[in-house]
Amino acid sequence: MVTRKDVAKMAGVSEATVSRVFNNVGPMKESTKQKVLAAAKELNYHPNAVARSFALGKSGHIGLILPYVPKVHLFSTYYFSEILSGIGEGVRRHGCDMLVMFRSPHESVDYTEPYRSRKVDGCIFLGALDVPAQREGFRELDRQGMPFVLINQHYEGETYSVVDADHEQGCYEAVKHLLEGGYRRIAFLNGSPQYSNSADRLRGYYRALNEAGLAPEPELILEGNYSRTSGYAAAARIAELGGRVDAVFSSNDRMAVGLMQGLKERGIVPGEDLAIVGYDDSEAAKLSDPPLTSVYVPFFEMGLLAADALLKRINASPEEDEPPVSFHERLSTKLVVRASSNPRPGA
Amino acid sequence: MVTRKDVAKMAGVSEATVSRVFNNVGPMKESTKQKVLAAAKELNYHPNAVARSFALGKSGHIGLILPYVPKVHLFSTYYFSEILSGIGEGVRRHGCDMLVMFRSPHESVDYTEPYRSRKVDGCIFLGALDVPAQREGFRELDRQGMPFVLINQHYEGETYSVVDADHEQGCYEAVKHLLEGGYRRIAFLNGSPQYSNSADRLRGYYRALNEAGLAPEPELILEGNYSRTSGYAAAARIAELGGRVDAVFSSNDRMAVGLMQGLKERGIVPGEDLAIVGYDDSEAAKLSDPPLTSVYVPFFEMGLLAADALLKRINASPEEDEPPVSFHERLSTKLVVRASSNPRPGA
Repeated sequence: MVTRKDVAKMAGVSEATVSRVFNNVGPMKESTKQKVLAAAKELNYHPNAVARSFALGKSGHIGLILPYVPKVHLFSTYYFSEILSGIGEGVRRHGCDMLVMFRSPHESVDYTEPYRSRKVDGCIFLGALDVPAQREGFRELDRQGMPFVLINQHYEGETYSVVDADHEQGCYEAVKHLLEGGYRRIAFLNGSPQYSNSADRLRGYYRALNEAGLAPEPELILEGNYSRTSGYAAAARIAELGGRVDAVFSSNDRMAVGLMQGLKERGIVPGEDLAIVGYDDSEAAKLSDPPLTSVYVPFFEMGLLAADALLKRINASPEEDEPPVSFHERLSTKLVVRASSNPRPGA
Repeated sequence: MVTRKDVAKMAGVSEATVSRVFNNVGPMKESTKQKVLAAAKELNYHPNAVARSFALGKSGHIGLILPYVPKVHLFSTYYFSEILSGIGEGVRRHGCDMLVMFRSPHESVDYTEPYRSRKVDGCIFLGALDVPAQREGFRELDRQGMPFVLINQHYEGETYSVVDADHEQGCYEAVKHLLEGGYRRIAFLNGSPQYSNSADRLRGYYRALNEAGLAPEPELILEGNYSRTSGYAAAARIAELGGRVDAVFSSNDRMAVGLMQGLKERGIVPGEDLAIVGYDDSEAAKLSDPPLTSVYVPFFEMGLLAADALLKRINASPEEDEPPVSFHERLSTKLVVRASSNPRPGA
């Protein structure tokens, strides 16, 4: 944690001077004040949050609950890594640390324990599923007034704090783009249904088809699990469908990249024989061959926003604290067009 | 944390039965025992580590110190994300959590504080630099006998516990591969010199050139900072050097990808006009155009090994504990040849 001492050293002033600047105790030369503020900014020094933590006996930690999946290199997936980078930035700005806890979403876990044992002041949940164990865990946290935020997952009928992206709109635009390119038989490779964003995406897909006067065909809706392997496996099914499919929209880039590999091995050229659109706008989308049209999701900003909102709530002093209300942020996505979805010749 | 209750539920037995299995208290039907052990394995239940933590008043947390670099999405870099995934796996296997702390390597930080306040039982350091603030911090931890491990960084003259990869050999093999392909004027785009692995790499480069009877040319040694931008910037210098360079070896894939982009913009075709070899064997190496020859480094295993070794040391009971000795593991790398370094025509 950055201390008053570090700021004093960098600004070339005494520690007492740093205190005077932050407590607004004059008189003070303006140039000195500016030097201290510049040093504090450079070092990300936040005296108030830190001081308040100590005074209130808080842990100074945010808990970060990640799904434990054996063998998956979780931090290496674009989705988790970007959100984590955003949370890390937010946590650091508030002078906090983060306690990373791997929990299986199917375990019955007492989420209140780390709060009660003063290990964390609040928690952020990533990759939560709509399954009984998690629903019950969140209900208990909510009942006890323990602050937490869900990222990219909402629960029908609950009013928990959530930072989400507008996946329905994101998918709608992706499918509309394919329709405008002259494609009509658009398969949809979705993720697991226990994620609320899978349902959001399906709604966007239906909306775009309906607007174009097309009826969704159940056989064109495939389910993967967001892994590259599941995209690769889907290539077999797409190849079987043959001429009944002229484009595939995939719920993430990872599956799209696996799909393209599987198609190539079957002699089907992505971007020529079949249009492909991915989702997330990861590095892989820019580097793949052909470059992959995708939907940008502001994952970093979602993580930053979640950490910032949670820490503001935790650090609010009782006087200024409104009765805690949950917040629901939904950030916009953006279609990024590349060569994998060039319009149909003659379209 | 997985509890005895979870194991009992999954195995369909009582909690007392689970205890009896783990405390080896008979009599017990073999089939029941196997059911319990299978459930424990499936859930990653480790009764001894957990019980011992409670008994010894430990935190059950491993600290993970990451360099704070404003604006860099640290978790999104292949290097950090893979090591972190490995650490996460190791920590989870021991039933622990990890406290992630972002610290600037140039800050004067008291690394002993999280140990003294029982926030962590040991620390793993990633991205450490050979700068005075960090040297002093490690010396103090060592003096106080507080367990810690450095990943991918060693300090001349110190005997700290380190998990490293054999970067000298990795670079030697990469440059030798280029020499065998008929290349003679091999530029080296290295990372920052404060990382010990930059010096290791340089030694490997020199060794390969010396063996081939070539004298290293100082103007062919460039310095980047492992970012894609710094690789992109190096393209200008490489273009200036013109015919004096026929191949470039880059210290990581990220710089190599930036370099290839910069070269293409100047009409220089990577893999045809100029051979390129990267390092790390990241996803980007497989996806880039042309696919990038690279050096595989077992980052995930390095993280797993560091966490496992650290936690074994922490959890060793006094009876079985040898006087703590530091360990120095150096894992092997492996050259992966792809189209970016096809042999010189006629070589």
